[in-house]
Amino acid sequence: MRIFEEIKKIQDWCKEQKMLGKKIGLVPTMGYLHEGHLALVREARKHCDIVVVSIFVNPIQFGVGEDFEVYPRDFARDTELLEQEKVDAVFAPSNEEMYCRDSSTRVEVTGEIAEKLCGASRPGHFRGVTTVCSKLFNICLPDLAVFGQKDAQQVMVLEKMVRELNFPLEIIRVPIVREADGLAMSSRNVYLDPEARKQAIVLNKALGETAEAIQSGERDTARLKSRLREIIESSPRAEIDYAEIYDAYDLADVSEVDKQVIVALAVKFGRTRLIDNRLVEV
Amino acid sequence: MRIFEEIKKIQDWCKEQKMLGKKIGLVPTMGYLHEGHLALVREARKHCDIVVVSIFVNPIQFGVGEDFEVYPRDFARDTELLEQEKVDAVFAPSNEEMYCRDSSTRVEVTGEIAEKLCGASRPGHFRGVTTVCSKLFNICLPDLAVFGQKDAQQVMVLEKMVRELNFPLEIIRVPIVREADGLAMSSRNVYLDPEARKQAIVLNKALGETAEAIQSGERDTARLKSRLREIIESSPRAEIDYAEIYDAYDLADVSEVDKQVIVALAVKFGRTRLIDNRLVEV
Repeated sequence: MRIFEEIKKIQDWCKEQKMLGKKIGLVPTMGYLHEGHLALVREARKHCDIVVVSIFVNPIQFGVGEDFEVYPRDFARDTELLEQEKVDAVFAPSNEEMYCRDSSTRVEVTGEIAEKLCGASRPGHFRGVTTVCSKLFNICLPDLAVFGQKDAQQVMVLEKMVRELNFPLEIIRVPIVREADGLAMSSRNVYLDPEARKQAIVLNKALGETAEAIQSGERDTARLKSRLREIIESSPRAEIDYAEIYDAYDLADVSEVDKQVIVALAVKFGRTRLIDNRLVEV
Repeated sequence: MRIFEEIKKIQDWCKEQKMLGKKIGLVPTMGYLHEGHLALVREARKHCDIVVVSIFVNPIQFGVGEDFEVYPRDFARDTELLEQEKVDAVFAPSNEEMYCRDSSTRVEVTGEIAEKLCGASRPGHFRGVTTVCSKLFNICLPDLAVFGQKDAQQVMVLEKMVRELNFPLEIIRVPIVREADGLAMSSRNVYLDPEARKQAIVLNKALGETAEAIQSGERDTARLKSRLREIIESSPRAEIDYAEIYDAYDLADVSEVDKQVIVALAVKFGRTRLIDNRLVEV
């Protein structure tokens, strides 16, 4: 497995691979890998000759007061896991390599899709995500990029960006990977103390009950959301950032569930903010 | 010469060319081609196996009240000229093909380089340029893109964008092509009435005298600019939009000319706004 730290070196290597007719799959990550990430890697492997994983905790997608500095990192363990998955190349640049001192180019998707949910709670977050992914796409030249459904709004925003800027690649979504008790895997789960960890399963429980209610015929999103909030609030440590039901394609408001919707949650347990979601089709 | 109107078709064709090992050169234009454009095409031809010229009057780089609707167009003549140059492919999409109804992804370079000069006179202009060029780069997959030094700030902004988003291509600048009397070639020159056309040579004259003054030892930009304005204002129909001297790399202010500077002009003759510039090295 090759490890690249320099943009020019991996970009040249990827160009060579493409000249050899290889299909490249990219899995962008912020490291501290778990089974969720490995599911992305395995999905990339299914479709591609060359699998590239980037590990980069992207400073510009964190807001002031967010957890950029303390975001968990373990490069040695990450590379060991990726070696086991027979990944071809890891791209792990420094901040200085990715953003020169006077860097001021940004890629931004505007509109509801990027401004609701995490876009409202974390101003500038998606601009950071779309900018870094544009760079990663240009550097690694993937035919295919794989993202987790866990960060549902992120993948929606990136799909829109890829479509509208005509990036020559396909985005693949991989379903959420969960712990045995249903908690969505996340690098941030390590922040949870034992009691918060126990209570955190309420997110998945609330999503499951909402999906069931819809399947049982409830269509009124106001009633569904009010029940969704009640379930979460039954956990004493849970503090809702958002609990919403929107159109699954563009996050438009829906008053009646009459097409695919996304039930999306962001819930804080102390300083740890968890997100989870479920797509529901009627 | 192939003519493409659909993004997917030319993108697939360019992918094929690259798989065949061909080097692609892209010349983005808004059509109504003149010798300046043809110089770009010839420069692309020098370096590349495949030359693609895009013809697209990009609506999002025009402001309200600007000349988008009346911008001169002559597709038949353009393709005839490009055929003579042995161009391999023309990409001429419709507005609807380039921008879907709910399109909201934008690429933007911020800072002095994009906010001074035309950035100040034409808010949003460079965001339109960087967005459309990002799309054209992703669609045509060039190894090399050729731009004219006539639109000096545009090429500076695009070079910064390519650097900071890591587009896998090189930008080449081609010197300004001028009419026999020194007027920089521009599709907008057709707007000029005979008297304005005659007076418009004052731009090149003013640039030349400023360059000479610098070469003769004048280093004070305030004095240089004041003389620059005087020369232009000697033309009764000329109305200065800007007449500035900045650092040629990033448009930073310079009080003393002690490195390469750009002398940049935008001057209106009635409703026709002309730009011109000269790089001066000390």
